[in-house]
Amino acid sequence: MTEHLVAHIKKFISLDAEKIRLLESFFEQRTYRKKEVLLSEGDRCYEKFFIVSGCVHLSYLKQNGIEQTTDFALENWWISDFMAFQNGSVAQFSIRAVEKTEVLCISADRQRKLLDLMPELNAYFHLVFQRAFAASQFRFRLLSEFSKEDLYRHFKQHFPEFLQRVPQYLLASFLGFTPEYLSEIRKKHLS
Amino acid sequence: MTEHLVAHIKKFISLDAEKIRLLESFFEQRTYRKKEVLLSEGDRCYEKFFIVSGCVHLSYLKQNGIEQTTDFALENWWISDFMAFQNGSVAQFSIRAVEKTEVLCISADRQRKLLDLMPELNAYFHLVFQRAFAASQFRFRLLSEFSKEDLYRHFKQHFPEFLQRVPQYLLASFLGFTPEYLSEIRKKHLS
Repeated sequence: MTEHLVAHIKKFISLDAEKIRLLESFFEQRTYRKKEVLLSEGDRCYEKFFIVSGCVHLSYLKQNGIEQTTDFALENWWISDFMAFQNGSVAQFSIRAVEKTEVLCISADRQRKLLDLMPELNAYFHLVFQRAFAASQFRFRLLSEFSKEDLYRHFKQHFPEFLQRVPQYLLASFLGFTPEYLSEIRKKHLS
Repeated sequence: MTEHLVAHIKKFISLDAEKIRLLESFFEQRTYRKKEVLLSEGDRCYEKFFIVSGCVHLSYLKQNGIEQTTDFALENWWISDFMAFQNGSVAQFSIRAVEKTEVLCISADRQRKLLDLMPELNAYFHLVFQRAFAASQFRFRLLSEFSKEDLYRHFKQHFPEFLQRVPQYLLASFLGFTPEYLSEIRKKHLS
């Protein structure tokens, strides 16, 4: 599995064979079944995950007990509750597999050791997080610019495969729809 | 001005006197008057800014010609259109001073040279962007959890000084209110 991560890192920085072996020794490979939990809201967050294959969603429990999805992560994305990961504090989000998902996992402690041995990985993470934050800037723009229906249209146009892949109730939650409303909009866009 | 940036970096990584002089030589100091533009939507984005003092807002023009504010940056924050900065492409946001603002500015080209000479700065930017992205994760949670009025209450409780500092029309735009609605809510919360 680690070859996926190595290939992703090599898009940003160079790595020789020795560094690759060192890097690989720091990650744990895990496979989660559909709906299995990677991180539970309320638990201490020690780990971050690189998605090798599959898809996960980030969510939290609303006061009314409904699970609200705020993000997804697909292949080649990193996911965690990054505030809790950085501070070693209690997670304010859960992470759950949308489908069978293979990940590489590293704890904050092991990452510190890895970055001591391979400080050049900071250049990779600098760019990864800059890009993630840039995507957030753009998402805040979309949220203020588009109606919910226009957001659905935008997703359908730009991420058609993603829309096929994610269960409708999760997509509805992410877009702030009721499942019924999403179903109505889908029918409208199909007809 | 550079002592502010040096102090901020030193919270994350160590820097000796020689490195500090090198670092300082890469930044340009600028002062913007209230409402002056740091970056214009539609222009190519070459620069990112470290706020030494003051406050700026990030905004874009909606189709109806109204300026929509999507973010603010205060002292010790980095701001740019980071997608455009990373790709050297056209900015999809403007950045404007809310009040008199002192910044340290670096272009993408100069940053590349600086990071070649001082790769350890990547560790600083890794943590800065991880934290910024973590704050975005939390903001998406707030946006889905709270009504607009509750968002105002949340900001008032957690960032009272910020609320005093920012003009009401910008705060209204950021929260998705009309200025009139914000004015009503403020009266309600004062009474």
